[in-house]
Amino acid sequence: MSTSSDPSADRFLSDLNELRAIGARGTGVVRRAFDTDDVRARLWLTDRFADAGLTPRIDPAGNVWGLRGRLLMGSHTDTQPEGGWLDGAFGVIAALQVARENPNVSVVSFQDEEGRFGATTGSEIWSGAMTPDQADALKDLDGVAFGTARQALPATGGFPDPTRFDAYIEPHIEQGPVLDTTGQVAGIVTAIVGLRQVEVTLGGQQNHAGTTPMDMRTDALRGLSDADYAIRDALRAIVTPRSVWTIGHVAVHPNAPSAVPGRVRFTVQWRDADTPRLDRMEKAIRTALAQIAAATGLSLTISATARLPPADMDAGLRSALAAAADTHAPGRWCNMPSGALHDATNVSRLMPAGMLFAPSIGGISHDFAEDTSADDLVTCLHILKTAAATLTSRPVRSAGRSCP
Amino acid sequence: MSTSSDPSADRFLSDLNELRAIGARGTGVVRRAFDTDDVRARLWLTDRFADAGLTPRIDPAGNVWGLRGRLLMGSHTDTQPEGGWLDGAFGVIAALQVARENPNVSVVSFQDEEGRFGATTGSEIWSGAMTPDQADALKDLDGVAFGTARQALPATGGFPDPTRFDAYIEPHIEQGPVLDTTGQVAGIVTAIVGLRQVEVTLGGQQNHAGTTPMDMRTDALRGLSDADYAIRDALRAIVTPRSVWTIGHVAVHPNAPSAVPGRVRFTVQWRDADTPRLDRMEKAIRTALAQIAAATGLSLTISATARLPPADMDAGLRSALAAAADTHAPGRWCNMPSGALHDATNVSRLMPAGMLFAPSIGGISHDFAEDTSADDLVTCLHILKTAAATLTSRPVRSAGRSCP
Repeated sequence: MSTSSDPSADRFLSDLNELRAIGARGTGVVRRAFDTDDVRARLWLTDRFADAGLTPRIDPAGNVWGLRGRLLMGSHTDTQPEGGWLDGAFGVIAALQVARENPNVSVVSFQDEEGRFGATTGSEIWSGAMTPDQADALKDLDGVAFGTARQALPATGGFPDPTRFDAYIEPHIEQGPVLDTTGQVAGIVTAIVGLRQVEVTLGGQQNHAGTTPMDMRTDALRGLSDADYAIRDALRAIVTPRSVWTIGHVAVHPNAPSAVPGRVRFTVQWRDADTPRLDRMEKAIRTALAQIAAATGLSLTISATARLPPADMDAGLRSALAAAADTHAPGRWCNMPSGALHDATNVSRLMPAGMLFAPSIGGISHDFAEDTSADDLVTCLHILKTAAATLTSRPVRSAGRSCP
Repeated sequence: MSTSSDPSADRFLSDLNELRAIGARGTGVVRRAFDTDDVRARLWLTDRFADAGLTPRIDPAGNVWGLRGRLLMGSHTDTQPEGGWLDGAFGVIAALQVARENPNVSVVSFQDEEGRFGATTGSEIWSGAMTPDQADALKDLDGVAFGTARQALPATGGFPDPTRFDAYIEPHIEQGPVLDTTGQVAGIVTAIVGLRQVEVTLGGQQNHAGTTPMDMRTDALRGLSDADYAIRDALRAIVTPRSVWTIGHVAVHPNAPSAVPGRVRFTVQWRDADTPRLDRMEKAIRTALAQIAAATGLSLTISATARLPPADMDAGLRSALAAAADTHAPGRWCNMPSGALHDATNVSRLMPAGMLFAPSIGGISHDFAEDTSADDLVTCLHILKTAAATLTSRPVRSAGRSCP
């Protein structure tokens, strides 16, 4: 094993496996924000921070900090309901190992990134995008409020002042197939894509599936098929290979084998790193839906558009990560957008932000089967250590931002 | 009102409204098989049978009989969870009024036609298609067994011997839009269409809707759209204007806005009065599904086909109903298949069977809003009385059956 004579890597992998044991379920883990195992993991982490010479702090949102230097690194330690062992954990433990060896680094584990209550809740509060009071009112699927749940992990201090940090680097698993499929060991994130989503309702006439002739039907499920095709056609001339769109949630009413569907609700979600392209996609989707409704006689309701803007990663941080990747994985890394949301989206409102991706085997994520080879994890650790060393030896803010 | 000087019609409408009051919910009714109001209605009915000179009997399946003559008429008095006031009730009360005036008529209200436990359960047992033991094991959505529920209506006798009847006529509302849309006041049923149904599962790869490029997806929901189109195309050259097919039930997994659908299950149901056409439709549907699976890389599972064969209505009974319709509604009736199942499907295995449809306003059925004009109901009553008079004045079995 390539890591056998590398104490830094051994410590990193050992910490990762200790954390994996908290809330373990077979190969996966379950640590929902503020549940017993999430709290155990966060308290375990404060001990690791103290051991490493960082000053531990739990803020009122449940974010756990290891404070020391001006370069902030980290991710999250809460998981999906059926979480992989590396989603979030890799970034936090890699940051911890970098901080052990570099006094100019601080570490964070943000809370509720995986959305028991909201989505990236802890970093959203810290970035100012959501007030603590708004967060306290968020409820999980069982009706438990964030404000109630967070009492399981009492704060030991306030929110750290963002100006004490110069930049943020979030290591994370890719959660997609691109690196694994193309044989890369690391990806440097160019931007976290923007996301837009609408909920569409097509209304027809619910009828008896035996007694209603085909020419007297207004079948809402057929409208869904028609809409799917129309959207595919409309987007073909607009998208790049990195644009994605998904009809992911579908509710058919009354959803019975012998009833002509009278109503279908479905989500259309699309993502791209480019805001003008998100706009063009939205226009094409709305136009296609309107045309289908007009052609079929179905009623059409489209919700207001939910929007998360794209977040460009900082060019200076990308450059430092790229140089480090050239050292440790020459020819085996690439630049890519992140199709998933991350805490870095929120933090990029406060300071320059960057991300490094490790490959996800088979692209599997949000699943107990999620995994990455130890060799790839360690290579990414080396890239992070080298990039951090570069960045903490000169002012981070010298790097320009990408053009919009 | 055309019925004001018609005591027979007045009595018929009065009985219909008395029955409507049992389990009334606004304009609709709720009498699920063996619930309190269904039992009340069936006991009320035995009293009406006795008043009319019929011999009441409740059989072990909960079918309620008014026994006297060799021409059996009736339908059912149980309802859908949100039932219309005429669905079933019209046929039973019309039969009761005919029997009051014609001693050669018997009346039945079959049990569980609307499928709290099975579907047309009472007539299925009586016809021998299901044993009483099989029926006792059927459970409703709350897990209550037919065998337990039927104790709410103790039997007063055994199952009547089918050979005591020569023929069965079931009056019913159309439950579809054809008569109302075309301005007819009665429909004579040529056949109850056959029904076939499969459950289809398309399996793709569940993935993150942000991180999975479009060209790396195997999206099961797209497979549903593709299948819908392929089936439409494949059936175009096979069907008649009376053939119907429906994708009525759809289950998407994991059914989340940010997940590429990994699996979609859906029903495909088709109905036609002609068995060879049902066969051709099945072949076309299965071929279309296989082609879509091959083209998309989705896995395909198709369940065994559920089958209910078409039931031809007896030509002699149709002829008697037609002559009566010519008398009472000249030029305002037509022949049509029944797209819905009825107890007559089961009874047609035992004896010649026929059906007369009254119009459903707006084609609405299985809904509290279901309705038919009093004038149309009374016209149908007159048709039934005249047809019964003709049929009971000569041997019913003289009529030939339709060619298969």
